Amino acid sequence: MKRHVYLKMKGLEEAKDIFLKARQGERTAKERINVEDSLGRVTSEPIFAGISAPSYHSAAMDGVAVRAEETYGATEKTPKLLKISSNAVWINTGQALPRDYNAVIMIEKIHQIDDETIEILSPAYPWQHIRKVGEDIVATQLLFPQNHVIRSYDMGAMISAGVLNVTVWGRPKVAVIPTGTELVSCRDPNAFELLKKNRIIESNSITLSGLVLESHAIPIVYDIVPDLELDIRNVILKAINSDADLVIINAGSSAGSKDYTANIIAELGDVLVHGIAMMPGKPTVLGVINGKPIIGIPGYTVSAILSFEQFARPLLLGMQGLTPAKQKSTVVRPSRDIPSKLGTEEFIRVNIGKVGDRLVATPLSRAAGSITSLTRAEGIIRIPSLSEGVTQEEDVEAELLVDDEELKNTIVVIGSHDITLDMLGDEIRRGGKNIRVSSGNVGSLGGLMAIRKGICHMAGTHLLDADTGEYNMSYIKRYLKGMKVSLFHLALRDQGLVVQKNNPKGIKGIDDLTREDVVFINRQAGSGTRILLDYRLAKSGIKPAAIKGYGSEEFTHMSIAVDVLSGAADCGMAIYAAAKALDLDFIPMDREQYDLVIPTDFLDDPKIEAVLDTIRSESFRNRVRALGGYDPSRSGELVMETGA
Amino acid sequence: MKRHVYLKMKGLEEAKDIFLKARQGERTAKERINVEDSLGRVTSEPIFAGISAPSYHSAAMDGVAVRAEETYGATEKTPKLLKISSNAVWINTGQALPRDYNAVIMIEKIHQIDDETIEILSPAYPWQHIRKVGEDIVATQLLFPQNHVIRSYDMGAMISAGVLNVTVWGRPKVAVIPTGTELVSCRDPNAFELLKKNRIIESNSITLSGLVLESHAIPIVYDIVPDLELDIRNVILKAINSDADLVIINAGSSAGSKDYTANIIAELGDVLVHGIAMMPGKPTVLGVINGKPIIGIPGYTVSAILSFEQFARPLLLGMQGLTPAKQKSTVVRPSRDIPSKLGTEEFIRVNIGKVGDRLVATPLSRAAGSITSLTRAEGIIRIPSLSEGVTQEEDVEAELLVDDEELKNTIVVIGSHDITLDMLGDEIRRGGKNIRVSSGNVGSLGGLMAIRKGICHMAGTHLLDADTGEYNMSYIKRYLKGMKVSLFHLALRDQGLVVQKNNPKGIKGIDDLTREDVVFINRQAGSGTRILLDYRLAKSGIKPAAIKGYGSEEFTHMSIAVDVLSGAADCGMAIYAAAKALDLDFIPMDREQYDLVIPTDFLDDPKIEAVLDTIRSESFRNRVRALGGYDPSRSGELVMETGA
Repeated sequence: MKRHVYLKMKGLEEAKDIFLKARQGERTAKERINVEDSLGRVTSEPIFAGISAPSYHSAAMDGVAVRAEETYGATEKTPKLLKISSNAVWINTGQALPRDYNAVIMIEKIHQIDDETIEILSPAYPWQHIRKVGEDIVATQLLFPQNHVIRSYDMGAMISAGVLNVTVWGRPKVAVIPTGTELVSCRDPNAFELLKKNRIIESNSITLSGLVLESHAIPIVYDIVPDLELDIRNVILKAINSDADLVIINAGSSAGSKDYTANIIAELGDVLVHGIAMMPGKPTVLGVINGKPIIGIPGYTVSAILSFEQFARPLLLGMQGLTPAKQKSTVVRPSRDIPSKLGTEEFIRVNIGKVGDRLVATPLSRAAGSITSLTRAEGIIRIPSLSEGVTQEEDVEAELLVDDEELKNTIVVIGSHDITLDMLGDEIRRGGKNIRVSSGNVGSLGGLMAIRKGICHMAGTHLLDADTGEYNMSYIKRYLKGMKVSLFHLALRDQGLVVQKNNPKGIKGIDDLTREDVVFINRQAGSGTRILLDYRLAKSGIKPAAIKGYGSEEFTHMSIAVDVLSGAADCGMAIYAAAKALDLDFIPMDREQYDLVIPTDFLDDPKIEAVLDTIRSESFRNRVRALGGYDPSRSGELVMETGA
Repeated sequence: MKRHVYLKMKGLEEAKDIFLKARQGERTAKERINVEDSLGRVTSEPIFAGISAPSYHSAAMDGVAVRAEETYGATEKTPKLLKISSNAVWINTGQALPRDYNAVIMIEKIHQIDDETIEILSPAYPWQHIRKVGEDIVATQLLFPQNHVIRSYDMGAMISAGVLNVTVWGRPKVAVIPTGTELVSCRDPNAFELLKKNRIIESNSITLSGLVLESHAIPIVYDIVPDLELDIRNVILKAINSDADLVIINAGSSAGSKDYTANIIAELGDVLVHGIAMMPGKPTVLGVINGKPIIGIPGYTVSAILSFEQFARPLLLGMQGLTPAKQKSTVVRPSRDIPSKLGTEEFIRVNIGKVGDRLVATPLSRAAGSITSLTRAEGIIRIPSLSEGVTQEEDVEAELLVDDEELKNTIVVIGSHDITLDMLGDEIRRGGKNIRVSSGNVGSLGGLMAIRKGICHMAGTHLLDADTGEYNMSYIKRYLKGMKVSLFHLALRDQGLVVQKNNPKGIKGIDDLTREDVVFINRQAGSGTRILLDYRLAKSGIKPAAIKGYGSEEFTHMSIAVDVLSGAADCGMAIYAAAKALDLDFIPMDREQYDLVIPTDFLDDPKIEAVLDTIRSESFRNRVRALGGYDPSRSGELVMETGA
């Protein structure tokens, strides 16, 4: 099998330097456009006023225009009379001052005697209440320097100054070329049919187009090209010879047998960098063909996005005279240690929320293919190449993906995950509140530990006490000793065995788990579901060792269902909703109690109040009931409260 | 003369409350669009995954797919051989796992023996290096709650989850109706001709359209309507009956004889507020007709913008489920006291720059018609209704109009203004540097005072010492005693008398200033030009009292030229460039020296280095020469340096 290697592997900053310096100072062609269409564009030449503004003397107030010298001597005791038309002219704000008049008296200061006569009680001084020619803008004056980003009121200023057209840097055009034999376009009418034949809906070109637009550039998306060297070479040549200012080829930039990008660029032009010591984003190619920049962007979504942000965005902004805004960041405290590989700059996506006085960051999946690790993240912690990671004892900087105001509006839920928490988040927003619910799955006991560490606002928990048959309370007394917390009920929910559609193995209950032909998939130790299973096994006298797959663990209900769907296992224990989501069969075993633990101090936080109001609403309960397998009749009830 | 009054005058916050509460919760109609077109839109319904992602098991690495159980026992000492096709299948990242295979071994870990055989040195565990179905997204999972702003990668996540269309809040449509008999459209081919007939180019509708777009709404600009009550009533009815979600009528919202807006709204619907205790922006009308919001926005540009920002923007954002971002602000120190009227919330536009450790704010023109007071501003200080102003002794908050990074890149020049400073700013930006030059005109002596107070980076000065005939140096020694400053030469420039085109009064020189038929306009005391004039008058034995208009003062060269152009004066003293700008005649008198004073401590600031590099460049000198009346041959030369 043919295998390429990364010949020009570089560190992130070095790679950026090499690529951007090779393009330094390069700008798109200038473009002359109407001022009305210039919002957000960047001037490529200085803008000088064509006319003065105001362009004639005009009244700055409603009143009468007068000749100042004819008003001298007027006082309250010796008022002066002026004749309309001969000594005074009614005038409104903005109207031109009649010839030979040189002052305006405000209407409030005038006594009207009759239709033709007014009386004034004080003199006017020359040019009072008049906007003189050029008071705001003088013809020929510099209005804006070059490389100025045009704002709404800048357009108004230009029009007022008689500047109707403006020369700006052109918006860069970006050819975006998706490649991959397995890909199918989302506009293909057979897209969903083809998924069953192991095809994938192509999504990166849409994400990249969005990023191109956000860089104030114009995306030109090509049709999907199969992984054939000749086809890829041809489309690259076509794009290089088009009017695109940048060519992005997505993917094939790695070093696999079908990764042609780097070789083709090397043949047609120059590879500047191949391979970046960053993660995700390593398989990036930076090159130039016929003087035109080309970027081979990796296929994994998160890699593609980070690679674009690091290399394409600054290039595109620079081409139109824009400087990248400084990345907004904030200081956070990791909720657990985050180890990282030496020699690679790592981009860890994190949930961030303000718990108590601290911004707490909890890492999400590191998988380069996990788009939800970005969509669910509030920020990114960059771990430098020379660091082995960060610990939960240190403050670290996180780049923000959301407005920092939003961090204050984020409710951090850590513990056992339940689908009703998603419902909750949506239901709160439905009411118009700008509150985010950010949830991390670490199981019920993990949730209690998170409360103990002060890194979350609430924890979802469903821990059965085998001795009492009660849920959660004894665990809280034991693990959260000395803390003031309140336990609120969220829902009763059905736990059971998830089996394949139509139950081909005829699994009927817990006793079937020891069958030779049944592979089980387990939940991790410390999860409520695991505790419930172990409780049932003990009651039935079944030894864990007798169950094939008891040692394989997953972290969520959905992962259990996915394993069953895929055939990795024949059954696993999970909630009904997980089976329903993937159209699997379900054998109910227990109705368990799922509650929320909240430190009592947080109860007067408006965010937490919004949670409690929502889970007590009929609207929320109806949505939960509609999921099936839930009884939310008592949601929001206070189950217990512990004293400090 | 008919005069209306503000019947429903309110404070700003109260007015906003009344208006927004009357519209509370109102949303635009939902709209179903392609995900590709959804960047920046706001979900109006929760988004659930349609399919799982990945939708099949796929390789996470390049290598071979194997059956884990067939690899058990492989070690370095006891390698295992696998046959291609029967026990192992070559696979690339992203490709579907063949049926009955359950693990991937990375290519790096494989020894290829021949075309059909590979050797492995360690076992694979089941599901290693495989992206399982649903690993990232599980069908039915909540992807995004409602009222979520869609980002680039959110589009990618939706497509990956098989969500190809999305329901979002519609973009609000805004009818923008310019009114005013004096207005002419910038698209009118005779626009510039009509200016001579005291018409004005209409610019507010373009500014307002920009602001509408920035509120993610769609502007629909109407033709200009003359100030006729019937026409205005008709166009309001037309707009109310259109599909616009908000009607903006610009202007006629004051209480003058031709201000019909408030009365028409009262007749057709309800006036909620008329008159706001804010400045600029007082003449605002907030109303509702047939359940549709209408805003009468004042005519002065700055008033129009502030009124839009306060009332229209939050309404438009709310309609599409968006919350206005918190206004970015910073703490600044006013460079002088700013008094303000009690009972009115005042919006003072200010230049802001970082001088030493402090952000210094210098107020710009307060005129509601001065668009340049906004275009030149870096921020706005809001002085509350119950305050009489702020002093230069206190720190105050300023809302930012530019990115706060830009404040660090702003060079604050205070003193005598010269056109070459505008050139300088433009020339620095031409080199690609993101540096702003922000300049305030307070005359040469005012500039030295500003240096003394530490509120600027440099001051332009041209102060003639009548005793020595030298410029600037003796003043610096006297007024900046004990400070370490450096004086750099900028240019020699021609001062003289600006007279009307073709010099109708036949003014030949300074001796003509005492003529009975000549009206002079003077510069303010403390300006270099005034000192030069007084020096010339003394030398010629002319008494100031003998000059008509000696007591009238203007603050800039351009204002002098404007006064001459308008006929307010027959002549005044100014630089050649001012006369040239307005096509006036010029009688040269002196070639004076214009220099820049810079505290020596600032010389190693990269911004200041950029200034010095620029004024020493041929490119800058050539541009200055082209203005006429300048000799920049020695620009950038160090004239003197004072010790501490």
